[in-house]
Amino acid sequence: MATGKAAEGPLYPVKGVRSATVRAGIRYPDRRDLVLIELAADTRVAGVFTRNAFCAAPVIVAREHLESMQGIGRYFLMNAGNANAGTGDSGLADARYCCEAVAQQTGVRAAEVLPFSTGVIGERLPVEKLVKGVREAVPALSDDADAWWDAAAGIMTTDTRPKVFSRQVEIDGQTVTLTGLCKGSGMVRPDMATMLAYVFTDAGMELSDLQSILNSSVEHSFNRITVDGDTSTNDCCMLAATGKSGVHLTPRDEQQWRVFSKALHELTQTMAVSVIRDAEGASKFVTIEVFEGADAQECLDVAYTIAESPLVKTALTASDPNWGRILAAVGRAGLTHLDISRVQIHLDDVCIVENGALAADYTEEAGQEVMNREDITITIRLDRGQAHETVWTADLSEEYVRINASYRS
Amino acid sequence: MATGKAAEGPLYPVKGVRSATVRAGIRYPDRRDLVLIELAADTRVAGVFTRNAFCAAPVIVAREHLESMQGIGRYFLMNAGNANAGTGDSGLADARYCCEAVAQQTGVRAAEVLPFSTGVIGERLPVEKLVKGVREAVPALSDDADAWWDAAAGIMTTDTRPKVFSRQVEIDGQTVTLTGLCKGSGMVRPDMATMLAYVFTDAGMELSDLQSILNSSVEHSFNRITVDGDTSTNDCCMLAATGKSGVHLTPRDEQQWRVFSKALHELTQTMAVSVIRDAEGASKFVTIEVFEGADAQECLDVAYTIAESPLVKTALTASDPNWGRILAAVGRAGLTHLDISRVQIHLDDVCIVENGALAADYTEEAGQEVMNREDITITIRLDRGQAHETVWTADLSEEYVRINASYRS
Repeated sequence: MATGKAAEGPLYPVKGVRSATVRAGIRYPDRRDLVLIELAADTRVAGVFTRNAFCAAPVIVAREHLESMQGIGRYFLMNAGNANAGTGDSGLADARYCCEAVAQQTGVRAAEVLPFSTGVIGERLPVEKLVKGVREAVPALSDDADAWWDAAAGIMTTDTRPKVFSRQVEIDGQTVTLTGLCKGSGMVRPDMATMLAYVFTDAGMELSDLQSILNSSVEHSFNRITVDGDTSTNDCCMLAATGKSGVHLTPRDEQQWRVFSKALHELTQTMAVSVIRDAEGASKFVTIEVFEGADAQECLDVAYTIAESPLVKTALTASDPNWGRILAAVGRAGLTHLDISRVQIHLDDVCIVENGALAADYTEEAGQEVMNREDITITIRLDRGQAHETVWTADLSEEYVRINASYRS
Repeated sequence: MATGKAAEGPLYPVKGVRSATVRAGIRYPDRRDLVLIELAADTRVAGVFTRNAFCAAPVIVAREHLESMQGIGRYFLMNAGNANAGTGDSGLADARYCCEAVAQQTGVRAAEVLPFSTGVIGERLPVEKLVKGVREAVPALSDDADAWWDAAAGIMTTDTRPKVFSRQVEIDGQTVTLTGLCKGSGMVRPDMATMLAYVFTDAGMELSDLQSILNSSVEHSFNRITVDGDTSTNDCCMLAATGKSGVHLTPRDEQQWRVFSKALHELTQTMAVSVIRDAEGASKFVTIEVFEGADAQECLDVAYTIAESPLVKTALTASDPNWGRILAAVGRAGLTHLDISRVQIHLDDVCIVENGALAADYTEEAGQEVMNREDITITIRLDRGQAHETVWTADLSEEYVRINASYRS
């Protein structure tokens, strides 16, 4: 199941980026599962990685390589079907071996290759299959728009749709392109970014600016979604800037920086939302808006408590306007001295709770009408201050249980 | 679904306690749903209540009455099918009205009556039905053992079994009885006690001692279980001591106090475990033991992160030894400077993780054999200190979703 429509809008190639997607036979017999992305020389790469203490071998290696090369990266090697997580020292050796293979085939240094894996935890990576796949991928590298679609499909696991989106903005009379792809559908409570997400642009910029703009975009996109509260061992989000558009950006040129920032924020938010629309077993897309908090953290505490409450999620599945469960979730979010008589709760435009109890003019019909919708916004007003946060989530269906009681991830 | 066997062992009446269970027709057409429990004069009552900010009207009234009467209580009035929560001022008035009705029928003060409700949130309590039920219950009060069973059945909602247990201990040549009943099966992450739980004893003691022994028992029983991480608005656990055994206890007599404490701890732990065995949709009973933490809190953080991970819970449903999900949960529990190479994880007696990776001698067959069991212990050793905590939970099945997507609670 999934909500909303699959990816829409045109896909634009990014100058300085080519990709190839091939069948390596890692886990899925009848589909492509290995993606190689080539970046032009001098491309700057910024990244954010999972904060799960048990982070996967490719995360450790990608972070090491990025640091040692000070943000210069030439190839991303991604595979689906095996996360190379919980594999200890052998897993690290396997990830490095694959980077070496790419380096040998392409003539770059192994440290210029960043590995990414997603899929089952705890099994050894079948490295020879990956190496064979790399040999096939190198001569197939292409810069056409369809290759982006193939790459997004190649990294899917329980995803039901490829997730790839583009934006173009005019800066200084030049066209700057941003294209992003991601995967993720369960184990999604990113502690910086969900599963695998990549944004490529042909703008150029200093590494420190690249990292800071990525951090701020992730904070309000991938770090505001949750499917099940589980944080993956393999989360990462990369931003690669080739500079091939001829446009060099710097925050000192505020107007240009704002145009690019806005496009990047919109793109990463679209990507993050696409993960929630394709959440495992999802039949509802739920936006949780918390207004009037004393600070951002308490808004997030309330939003995540609602978003991750199995009882709220199952009520959503049932299209049951069971507002008592939302109220109970607000009540256990841990806010100090919460005065419940000042809390207001809306389902879309229907006020369900005011003064700590059912709103006087609430009717079950009005609540039911909203709950029947596929897209629902739950709005909480705390009347404690000016802070506001938004979190996106999905419902919890029998299908979610079926998927996770059968898929080894 | 439920795990293990239903309540076993004899039930003992408690001197100074009588009960009656009748059909008030609050929500369920064909069963008894109203329980009145009478306590002998001078019975001391201690209680702990939900910390959910949206606590229900009966919780507020029970707390007020206990305080105003300094722990003297004469009647507990409990109903199933309607939680009288999220009902604002009308809900408070309804709860008080029911206490008045009991007071009028029995000649005690309204403040000596404590109300308890469980069931759907946000609907007005049908007070006239309750009052009619009270009139029927008063002449039916009985001190026989079967009445305990009826009372435990009368407060059930999604529970599949009544939960009532007894212990007897010899103190000073006298027999002291403890009998406890409880209900709860979903919305169970008690923030002091689950849903409704009551323990009665014919020992006597000072109110302050009664409260402190209750607090310590709850801390290691009801406060160590979770079904879904959701904390009820109506949680409470009451301990009533009639003194009618002739035994008066005080912590100053250490030996006697220890005998009683041990019996109370065992009883409340049995009650708490019975809630988890009857968790909504449960097919597994899971004990999570965290050893060698730096302090109790970090042991609990790890235990609850595992216990409430939808991915761990669905793997349990599937009897899938998907240890990677346990490892990922440990990794996101938020422990500072966790050295994953020192973490060890066992499923029952099978070592699955050591040195941050799959144990060398682990076999899928051995893991599968454990996961096929109904009762499973997950043991984590952190190698950071001496602290140890235990948490009990159940799996997450399609049946859980079905129950909560159809039952209004």
